Amino acid sequence: MKRNLGPVNALYPSLTVIVGAVVEGRPNFLAVAHVGIMNHGQPQYLSFGINKKHYTVAGIMEHKEFSVCLPNEDMVAETDFVGIVSGRNTDKSDLFELFSGELAHAPLIKSCPVCMECRLDRVLDFDTHSIFIGEVVATHAEETVLREDGKIDIAEVRPVLFDMASVSYWSLGSPLASCWSVGKGLKRRLADKP
Amino acid sequence: MKRNLGPVNALYPSLTVIVGAVVEGRPNFLAVAHVGIMNHGQPQYLSFGINKKHYTVAGIMEHKEFSVCLPNEDMVAETDFVGIVSGRNTDKSDLFELFSGELAHAPLIKSCPVCMECRLDRVLDFDTHSIFIGEVVATHAEETVLREDGKIDIAEVRPVLFDMASVSYWSLGSPLASCWSVGKGLKRRLADKP
Repeated sequence: MKRNLGPVNALYPSLTVIVGAVVEGRPNFLAVAHVGIMNHGQPQYLSFGINKKHYTVAGIMEHKEFSVCLPNEDMVAETDFVGIVSGRNTDKSDLFELFSGELAHAPLIKSCPVCMECRLDRVLDFDTHSIFIGEVVATHAEETVLREDGKIDIAEVRPVLFDMASVSYWSLGSPLASCWSVGKGLKRRLADKP
Repeated sequence: MKRNLGPVNALYPSLTVIVGAVVEGRPNFLAVAHVGIMNHGQPQYLSFGINKKHYTVAGIMEHKEFSVCLPNEDMVAETDFVGIVSGRNTDKSDLFELFSGELAHAPLIKSCPVCMECRLDRVLDFDTHSIFIGEVVATHAEETVLREDGKIDIAEVRPVLFDMASVSYWSLGSPLASCWSVGKGLKRRLADKP
């Protein structure tokens, strides 16, 4: 039996990332879990949505660049910290050791196993929130989280997931099944049905 | 030491959902893991992006309504199946037992622990992909996945996560820490620094 909860957002868990930007000449970071994948292909576009009041908004609008870094489970306190403290009254520029990529205004965090540099593509207006859509320009991954074929091993990344109802960060579990594969048996059975 | 992988989408895991729509007068379903949360508040907006070639596109454009249902781990084969078989040549309308909500063209799946009905808000154009942004109109959750306070218990939902690099579905792990809380210790330590 189902209950109608009203117009509740139940699209959880989402992935917790740290968005980096240069604001008033200084690297600034904030935790964001309201992210999205737009398309599949090249150019590759990602989104994140934040309240327009955030200090980071002006920096992204000025430079049209930002970073999206994936913290691992060991970084959950730092991740939460950059989510509860505003750059408007706290300098977060020396919280992380940084490294440079291809863009001048997409600060990258060394301790994050995976970091993406993004160029702003467009901004969507949603009343209280701005949704920033960026094109991925380069993705930097720690050698220790790469498989032999050079792809990212998500189990080694140990990403931080987010759930609003429990107000908690969650870990990733185990592989369940192969995509575009586990449904093939059902496809055959249904095709054989008289 | 980090390696530059080029412009790779590393925003994984993402949440696997089954999108439902009425196409050519019949309920149709497809698996989508490229989803996004836009804002936080009311109205609440969600996104999903699919290749424009998909059969479902015409149905959403016609009725301006769709559903977003969360399968659980037990449904991984059915979920994969609706991702590998097109409604163009396979009738998927009787694969699931359905139920009705508030919208006439947002078919809801009984076996999914959580189902959202969405009204189309806008469509973004990304070359090969259309990004559909919907406003959540109603969210239906199985009583067995609700906590005493009426909120969704994500551990009971047992959602199906998706990772492109491993081409696999993944389970959710365990709670790591409390949001807007675990970073408070760091905040105090940094505030006390001379």
